[in-house]
Amino acid sequence: MTTIGDEAVTIGLDLGGTKLQAALVDARGEVSGGGRRPTDAERGPDGVLADLVDLAEELVASADRSVLGVGVGVAGQVDPETGTVMRAPNLEWRDFPLKARLEAAIDLPVFVINDVQAATYGEWTCGAGRGARDLVCMFVGTGVGGGVVSGGSLMRGCGGTAGELGHTTLDWHGPRCTCRNRGCLEAFASGWAIAQRASEAATKDPEGGRTLIDLADGEVDGLTAEIVVHAAHEGDPLALRLMRETGEALGVGIASIANAFNPCMVILGGGVIEGMPELVTLAEAEARRRALEAALDPLEVMKAGLGKHAGTVGAAMWARHGLAKAGPE
Amino acid sequence: MTTIGDEAVTIGLDLGGTKLQAALVDARGEVSGGGRRPTDAERGPDGVLADLVDLAEELVASADRSVLGVGVGVAGQVDPETGTVMRAPNLEWRDFPLKARLEAAIDLPVFVINDVQAATYGEWTCGAGRGARDLVCMFVGTGVGGGVVSGGSLMRGCGGTAGELGHTTLDWHGPRCTCRNRGCLEAFASGWAIAQRASEAATKDPEGGRTLIDLADGEVDGLTAEIVVHAAHEGDPLALRLMRETGEALGVGIASIANAFNPCMVILGGGVIEGMPELVTLAEAEARRRALEAALDPLEVMKAGLGKHAGTVGAAMWARHGLAKAGPE
Repeated sequence: MTTIGDEAVTIGLDLGGTKLQAALVDARGEVSGGGRRPTDAERGPDGVLADLVDLAEELVASADRSVLGVGVGVAGQVDPETGTVMRAPNLEWRDFPLKARLEAAIDLPVFVINDVQAATYGEWTCGAGRGARDLVCMFVGTGVGGGVVSGGSLMRGCGGTAGELGHTTLDWHGPRCTCRNRGCLEAFASGWAIAQRASEAATKDPEGGRTLIDLADGEVDGLTAEIVVHAAHEGDPLALRLMRETGEALGVGIASIANAFNPCMVILGGGVIEGMPELVTLAEAEARRRALEAALDPLEVMKAGLGKHAGTVGAAMWARHGLAKAGPE
Repeated sequence: MTTIGDEAVTIGLDLGGTKLQAALVDARGEVSGGGRRPTDAERGPDGVLADLVDLAEELVASADRSVLGVGVGVAGQVDPETGTVMRAPNLEWRDFPLKARLEAAIDLPVFVINDVQAATYGEWTCGAGRGARDLVCMFVGTGVGGGVVSGGSLMRGCGGTAGELGHTTLDWHGPRCTCRNRGCLEAFASGWAIAQRASEAATKDPEGGRTLIDLADGEVDGLTAEIVVHAAHEGDPLALRLMRETGEALGVGIASIANAFNPCMVILGGGVIEGMPELVTLAEAEARRRALEAALDPLEVMKAGLGKHAGTVGAAMWARHGLAKAGPE
């Protein structure tokens, strides 16, 4: 490993199913410029690639310092060796050689990684996880994703998908998940699951669900996690119960994860957590009732530090890591 | 890292709650001598230490080649930095500086590690897992223990307890586990859980449980996992159902574990698996119904290769690893 230009910057790109985000990031993780646009997945990989190239070139042109390389976090499975996107269901990509194609288009080294692993890398290097040798991040949004740092390295796994913590089973006979398994953490605690549980509860008990239904303009099927979070903050009993149950489910999952990985920290982020940070405390309390004493001893559970920037900052820092590993420029 | 004496041997000690085992092991994991005695935990750490020293010295005296060092796998939590045994409930040890005390007693470098992590290291370096960069071992005996190799390194975790896979929750409202959590993998698939489920089933349906009860000399509370395995091999329908359910529970756990760690291999070992190797196929089938497609792509599920030697061979290979890391002799 070598130390690379502290004065220079790298570009972090976050390629999600709905939007592309870009940031210029320095060695300390500070963002000095950025851009975003919607992901136009219908144009296919070549169209999305052209947009990524545009975003990167705009940032290179705007930078007042040397730009060393580009990191890309992709919502999909990335081959750790080649930087090829093997599958990205939200983009409908299969086996697209993103690293090779981006490097051919822009004259900079490119490092590709899964988007949630990138965000984990960001939290580890510049966010809530700084200095920990072993940590787990869980991002609770529409779905639940995760990433793991073990023994001072980001865990990639055999096929690049290590850290799919949203598909940790909580109840093998439980509700069907989007992944075809039953009773996954995601099927209890994700944005879609909170919305689904709210609809079910309000349908079963329209009186208790009155506030939620009103907030959804009378449409019980229009309930969302955002509405539940809003109503909980207004003190609605049903919404509060749904959030308590969400915290409990997160805690059950964290107990399994703490036992399996023995991290120093579990970091919780994503839209649901940002909307209702109380979930961190609720989840920690449940995890402490369930995990092994030895796993709990060193464990801290905390909220993510980088918010919406975790993905781009993490991708940029991942590029810096890749450049350092590759040796002097 | 340096390469150390291919002609020389190391000693592997396996310190369990009921027995001490020792082996002289060469660079390829071949065992050329060994010893064992019961663990006399009542004599306290000093008494057990004296027995370990005796076993090691007997092997040094018997060796026809140079002995480079000693690895010890301990049924407990080991501080990765100091080699102190922080807790070992079966031995009733707390904070016993095993590495320091052994090194003071025998004139060889000593490397201490958790016993299941040692067995995992053995399977990885000399057993079924040779050559894999990412693998998970699960040992199903009286309890269920585990170990993980990630990115070409044995995972230790923040407090040295990474890989406690037996306490992965399968059903958060399920049966109470020995660890105080509910519905752990161990509470469904371990030796004690199989015995318990057999007793419950035979109590509920004495007719269906006749064969099992007879094998336990008429004592339904005397049922053991060994009896269930024996009866299953004789074709007893209840025993077969219990084993199918055990395989299913293992598969549910493996699905969570495959999603979280994305290993190339899951290796199953321990007394229950050795007694009923069919469980490997049953567990794999269930895991394939549940895990993410991306996690399944690279995944092999297989039986452990070293049998009862995994612990001592792994500890000896761990010593070799420690010596290589520390540099030339």
